[in-house]
Amino acid sequence: MLIGQDQAVSAYQQVRSTTDAFSEGLTAEDQNLQSMADVSPIKWHRAHTSWFFETFLLKPHLPDYRPYNDDFAYLFNSYYNSLGAQYPRAARALISRPDSAEVGRYRAHVDQAMLVLLSRADADAERARIMNLMILGLNHEQQHQELMVTDLKHAFSHNPIAPAIVDLNGQDGSERPLQWLHFEGGLAETGFDGDSFHFDNEGPRHQVFLAPFSLADRPVSCGEFADFIDDGGYQRAELWLSDGWAWIKEQSISHPLYWERQDHHWHIYTCGGRRSLDRSEPVCHLNFYEACAFAEWANARLPLEAEWEHASRLAGTPGILADDRRYHPDAPGRSDGQLAQMFGGVWEWTRSSYAPYPGFRPARGAVGEYNGKFMANQMVLRGGSCATPGGHIRPSYRNFFYPRDRWQFSGLRLARDGAAGRSA
Amino acid sequence: MLIGQDQAVSAYQQVRSTTDAFSEGLTAEDQNLQSMADVSPIKWHRAHTSWFFETFLLKPHLPDYRPYNDDFAYLFNSYYNSLGAQYPRAARALISRPDSAEVGRYRAHVDQAMLVLLSRADADAERARIMNLMILGLNHEQQHQELMVTDLKHAFSHNPIAPAIVDLNGQDGSERPLQWLHFEGGLAETGFDGDSFHFDNEGPRHQVFLAPFSLADRPVSCGEFADFIDDGGYQRAELWLSDGWAWIKEQSISHPLYWERQDHHWHIYTCGGRRSLDRSEPVCHLNFYEACAFAEWANARLPLEAEWEHASRLAGTPGILADDRRYHPDAPGRSDGQLAQMFGGVWEWTRSSYAPYPGFRPARGAVGEYNGKFMANQMVLRGGSCATPGGHIRPSYRNFFYPRDRWQFSGLRLARDGAAGRSA
Amino acid sequence: MLIGQDQAVSAYQQVRSTTDAFSEGLTAEDQNLQSMADVSPIKWHRAHTSWFFETFLLKPHLPDYRPYNDDFAYLFNSYYNSLGAQYPRAARALISRPDSAEVGRYRAHVDQAMLVLLSRADADAERARIMNLMILGLNHEQQHQELMVTDLKHAFSHNPIAPAIVDLNGQDGSERPLQWLHFEGGLAETGFDGDSFHFDNEGPRHQVFLAPFSLADRPVSCGEFADFIDDGGYQRAELWLSDGWAWIKEQSISHPLYWERQDHHWHIYTCGGRRSLDRSEPVCHLNFYEACAFAEWANARLPLEAEWEHASRLAGTPGILADDRRYHPDAPGRSDGQLAQMFGGVWEWTRSSYAPYPGFRPARGAVGEYNGKFMANQMVLRGGSCATPGGHIRPSYRNFFYPRDRWQFSGLRLARDGAAGRSA
Amino acid sequence: MLIGQDQAVSAYQQVRSTTDAFSEGLTAEDQNLQSMADVSPIKWHRAHTSWFFETFLLKPHLPDYRPYNDDFAYLFNSYYNSLGAQYPRAARALISRPDSAEVGRYRAHVDQAMLVLLSRADADAERARIMNLMILGLNHEQQHQELMVTDLKHAFSHNPIAPAIVDLNGQDGSERPLQWLHFEGGLAETGFDGDSFHFDNEGPRHQVFLAPFSLADRPVSCGEFADFIDDGGYQRAELWLSDGWAWIKEQSISHPLYWERQDHHWHIYTCGGRRSLDRSEPVCHLNFYEACAFAEWANARLPLEAEWEHASRLAGTPGILADDRRYHPDAPGRSDGQLAQMFGGVWEWTRSSYAPYPGFRPARGAVGEYNGKFMANQMVLRGGSCATPGGHIRPSYRNFFYPRDRWQFSGLRLARDGAAGRSA
Repeated sequence: MLIGQDQAVSAYQQVRSTTDAFSEGLTAEDQNLQSMADVSPIKWHRAHTSWFFETFLLKPHLPDYRPYNDDFAYLFNSYYNSLGAQYPRAARALISRPDSAEVGRYRAHVDQAMLVLLSRADADAERARIMNLMILGLNHEQQHQELMVTDLKHAFSHNPIAPAIVDLNGQDGSERPLQWLHFEGGLAETGFDGDSFHFDNEGPRHQVFLAPFSLADRPVSCGEFADFIDDGGYQRAELWLSDGWAWIKEQSISHPLYWERQDHHWHIYTCGGRRSLDRSEPVCHLNFYEACAFAEWANARLPLEAEWEHASRLAGTPGILADDRRYHPDAPGRSDGQLAQMFGGVWEWTRSSYAPYPGFRPARGAVGEYNGKFMANQMVLRGGSCATPGGHIRPSYRNFFYPRDRWQFSGLRLARDGAAGRSA
Repeated sequence: MLIGQDQAVSAYQQVRSTTDAFSEGLTAEDQNLQSMADVSPIKWHRAHTSWFFETFLLKPHLPDYRPYNDDFAYLFNSYYNSLGAQYPRAARALISRPDSAEVGRYRAHVDQAMLVLLSRADADAERARIMNLMILGLNHEQQHQELMVTDLKHAFSHNPIAPAIVDLNGQDGSERPLQWLHFEGGLAETGFDGDSFHFDNEGPRHQVFLAPFSLADRPVSCGEFADFIDDGGYQRAELWLSDGWAWIKEQSISHPLYWERQDHHWHIYTCGGRRSLDRSEPVCHLNFYEACAFAEWANARLPLEAEWEHASRLAGTPGILADDRRYHPDAPGRSDGQLAQMFGGVWEWTRSSYAPYPGFRPARGAVGEYNGKFMANQMVLRGGSCATPGGHIRPSYRNFFYPRDRWQFSGLRLARDGAAGRSA
Repeated sequence: MLIGQDQAVSAYQQVRSTTDAFSEGLTAEDQNLQSMADVSPIKWHRAHTSWFFETFLLKPHLPDYRPYNDDFAYLFNSYYNSLGAQYPRAARALISRPDSAEVGRYRAHVDQAMLVLLSRADADAERARIMNLMILGLNHEQQHQELMVTDLKHAFSHNPIAPAIVDLNGQDGSERPLQWLHFEGGLAETGFDGDSFHFDNEGPRHQVFLAPFSLADRPVSCGEFADFIDDGGYQRAELWLSDGWAWIKEQSISHPLYWERQDHHWHIYTCGGRRSLDRSEPVCHLNFYEACAFAEWANARLPLEAEWEHASRLAGTPGILADDRRYHPDAPGRSDGQLAQMFGGVWEWTRSSYAPYPGFRPARGAVGEYNGKFMANQMVLRGGSCATPGGHIRPSYRNFFYPRDRWQFSGLRLARDGAAGRSA
Repeated sequence: MLIGQDQAVSAYQQVRSTTDAFSEGLTAEDQNLQSMADVSPIKWHRAHTSWFFETFLLKPHLPDYRPYNDDFAYLFNSYYNSLGAQYPRAARALISRPDSAEVGRYRAHVDQAMLVLLSRADADAERARIMNLMILGLNHEQQHQELMVTDLKHAFSHNPIAPAIVDLNGQDGSERPLQWLHFEGGLAETGFDGDSFHFDNEGPRHQVFLAPFSLADRPVSCGEFADFIDDGGYQRAELWLSDGWAWIKEQSISHPLYWERQDHHWHIYTCGGRRSLDRSEPVCHLNFYEACAFAEWANARLPLEAEWEHASRLAGTPGILADDRRYHPDAPGRSDGQLAQMFGGVWEWTRSSYAPYPGFRPARGAVGEYNGKFMANQMVLRGGSCATPGGHIRPSYRNFFYPRDRWQFSGLRLARDGAAGRSA
């Protein structure tokens, strides 16, 4: 699938300017925060996404390209071992120079060269290759746009002042009972199908056999999760996986990330600042262990990723996406026999570990380090979140995080074996 | 499936006396070693397996049973949260009292009561329940028999004197080329089938769809692994999963556990003491990362557990089992179109994470903590090893360890997509 | 001792503007770096020194004072438990807001109020109290001025670009042999004497008995330390204190902080950027263990703090001080029977642990937390460094750091028992 | 000072048999416990003290001596770097072989050879050297006799069964008020004086100047310490050194080691098992921080080691010593103007860091590693304890431990500046 030159330029400018828009309201110090090793400074995200275009497109394909600064090849390489050593991840906030303004100049330098490259690419074979890499670069940058939100939220949460990134009007939704939708299962196909862009880990498309199952018509809500807590959810070992129980004991965990109990009421920190809990919103910032324990308590389980993908054909109204610039999920409306908020809102933990599909082989060279080498110890999440750009998510999209991770907008949707009862 | 009373008594005595026989040659100090948190002292294994019968059979089913010592309920509970607190795992070697002799008396006390219980169980329903629990207890004890070997080997390896547990004659086998066997795949059934004993995690039996694949006719050998090392295997990031690469960097790993290079030759520590490497033996004491890196280097992959189980119908001559009392794998003979050493020899890492089969629900109560709660972060191994009792292993048996673990007798068998070439 | 109002205002403005001048050349990101828990961001130093005046002078003594921001009482309290909880030290870089500009406004707010306070203080008793606290506040700020240099240097050293804070002309000095000065010892007085400002830990003045000793006429040079390294200094256990040897083994230490060997030549990172080693300069960034090991190698020892103070009456030309704005020691000139660079240049480790002088009692209240509670596990350093403001140092001044610490400008001067030989 | 041959043999046999007597009541497992890195197994102590004689006496001075086992040179070297590498300290419990019985044979082998050596040493110079080393070896073994008690107590305390080593009759003493004794101070001599055995760190004898001070006539009691706890001692930051406060926060400390609150009453674990707190006994198992905080609370301070030594001329009735085989301090009787229990009972923390005396130089060679290299980060304790052999303690004896350490029998005696009031 090829896109035209104008289309390419337009797509490029749209993604790049979205990144810029996000950072514009932030001070230089805001852009250099790193609250844990998993989190990267906004400035680093801005530079690294530019480094990606410089490394994979400009240096190999634009003959007269002059790198902005040779040190950046080391400073802004994330994890590509085949491209050489990397500046230590946990120390990214120690890079005060280049400062935020200079990273802006670096971005402009790369953008200018990219426009030249896009205008020059004439020969078909070369052009296809460049377009594919550019689209990969844009999708890569969209992933970092989501991380910019989650990372900044995590960093800001350490400031007692609890800064807001956006305005959230405080209107609460209303709680509604959960409905189950039933699926017959059988032999099904799963994985990306089509010729548009997708990550290598979404294929090859292949057959799986699914037993009959049911899926909840909406994600689990904050109210339901508060009930789980009130019912002793964090004190009952029998609800937890062994590693999860060890984790809550070690870390003295008694509630989701960003929740805080004040005067017998729950408050949460959102990208709009601190506010009281809205029971109707989807719960998020759970890790896999918390999601599993809740499902056990609810006499249910997490869906497999193939079940989720199979069911997504019945996806109804999506939840909040990054384009809404709220960065917080909202209450789902009526589902009318569909699956509300399968996309957007919150990422949904599945019971599937992140593993290669049958026949999967990573690409040769550095680009091959993108996905394949992470296929151990992580679990798949599906559906995108309120921080995912709208054009970035699709049924076959596989996100993955460690079972302990909870700084993403990660929630859950319940599943059950066979035909579940009429209501939870 | 019911077994007769004589058969039950005989099975009980056989398993219990095997445990006793293993510890007989060991000093009191040998029996109280703990070289890392994962390892338990032999004395603890001897007591804990008795605690299992006391807790799950004698206390609930033998009305006039008097526990040997009330403190043991706490001291020798491994991880059953529903039975109360447990003595800290990593500190098990701090329990000098009860001493080894007293643990022997504890075992005798339990054995005597068990014989009474087995002789009394008349009513059918009660009898079936007791028999099932007893068989679970015997299988549990067999698992600990294997751990006694692996744990003692690990502990002894820290002693510069390198004590031997058994005599190993030093006869080297001969290397032979690897052959590939092809499997068509398609819709297959997997999981335990039958009415004899099996662990809950082996079921429910269910359908899976398998793509065509090939499997090597024998495990990877020490010689092949030495070639991998010589070819820079531990220095080439592109061969490793990201977490595996982080592990070898953090721990400065450059060879399998128990290997040592002296004067340009490899030596290994075995249960028969230190000896020079035999290239024809199956390689073991690899963790999942090392197994994956080797497979990548060999242009192959690990099998899925369903592939392994499906292929096991072609299993040929087994490898060494615990009954041989060698506790070390030996070179496989000719395979003649079969899969040599599918059982025994070395556990084989699969590419499947340890997860519940569709429809799996753990049993109610403490027995339900046996398997289900460990279904996160671990990988499945198949086939048993030279430390597994012969009657304990079967095609559907699922062993599981963390990707970092390598103190088990864990090796690998290569797999490939489709019809693999004629030779590796 | 009272100072006049004009003098007070002038002293206040001089110290405060020196702090401001240092931060003026730095970007907002530069000012928010924290490279280890011991290091604080420049912005935090700027705010904390203002918090000190606000907390100990303005709030209690200026009736109509309105705090700039109530959150700052928590954010910028360093370690005063009696004033309430403190924001976690290791996370100071997570405070992006208030940003650098707002901290500037906070400083101006405090300065304005301080000028009002200084102009109002009429009654003698109150005036004396305020003056004493203000002078304490200025000395406190001078200590933080030194930390601003050492902390920024440490943070910048993590940036591969190796930013320079100042221009250092590269002129090398010439090496000259060390001379020994002899002191008879006997009963001597030590501790602060006079009525001008001093910290509580410098008193009470008291008698000590000193055995005869000799002191080197200059600090140990980089050339001498390079010889120690070449002689296997970091590989010879017999030169090291046991804890020091454990430290170099654990951390794989083979040279002082900021030294780097390139192409068989030593380079060091200075506040003027990276440059080749000048053998004639005093060595610095040693910790206590390194200082002791060098002294052992040189067949000498570290001086006691009472010896150092006793000998300081023969102090000759001082070394570089912060007022020189070089932040790097230079080669001492001829000593002519005096002790060159006793003040300035590098802090000199002593063999004395930081302990209370006989009769020492800390002040009541929060101010009493300034010094006394740190009198364990630390060693005394004497004489000031190239980062110490000139008016801040004196013979009785006791600086203190842990034996492991080496990010200060810390070097050593050799001592020997009795009348040392003619040369080292 | 020379001792006769018979006297030497008798001294040797007395010390060696005392060690043997202690281990005789212990099982093999008891003898191989290691509950933290600071603790060594009893078996290791038995072997290491024999290694000392083998290494420093038999190998160099008995020409035809044949070492029992060459591996032991590595296994049982504690920390003598000049004698080669050492088996890792924290892993000493992993040495099951040699077992306890074989270590007994090793001891007998060394004893036999030592008797030969002592009988042969004729020439005066050689004889003096051997006698000095033998006496050092005996004193070394006595130090390990004390550690055998403290280490076994620590290890046993991890066993919920709380084994007893000795019988302690439970008779409680009566509390009596503390009296102060006053000392004028002035120029005094300190350090060992005489020609009998002493450790190198007790000299050289030298002059110190002491300000007037007072010393309590008995150690602080358990009752007084319980009052400190009841008064919020562990919750009041102002009483603690900064490092001490960090320690209690990190470790959640709220009482001394081996104390346990049950039903509102204190119980302690002693070498005689668990029993209720006797208010009249000296408190022990405090670390330096706890001792300092208590002194601060009592409006007093710890003595300097020179004060303690100076005052020890007024030492009255000693406390319990190891020869009493109780291993637990008892209530002091009336003091009658003397200092009760200056020796025995509990080690008394001083306010002096462990540092070289003026003119101190360690011996050449491996013996020089005995004391000097530990002169950093540790504090001096004086007077011996209930686990110290009676002939081993003297006024100039300097024991030393880290401020955090509390598994020794360590308590405190209060001091004050000048002439203290009549009562505490």
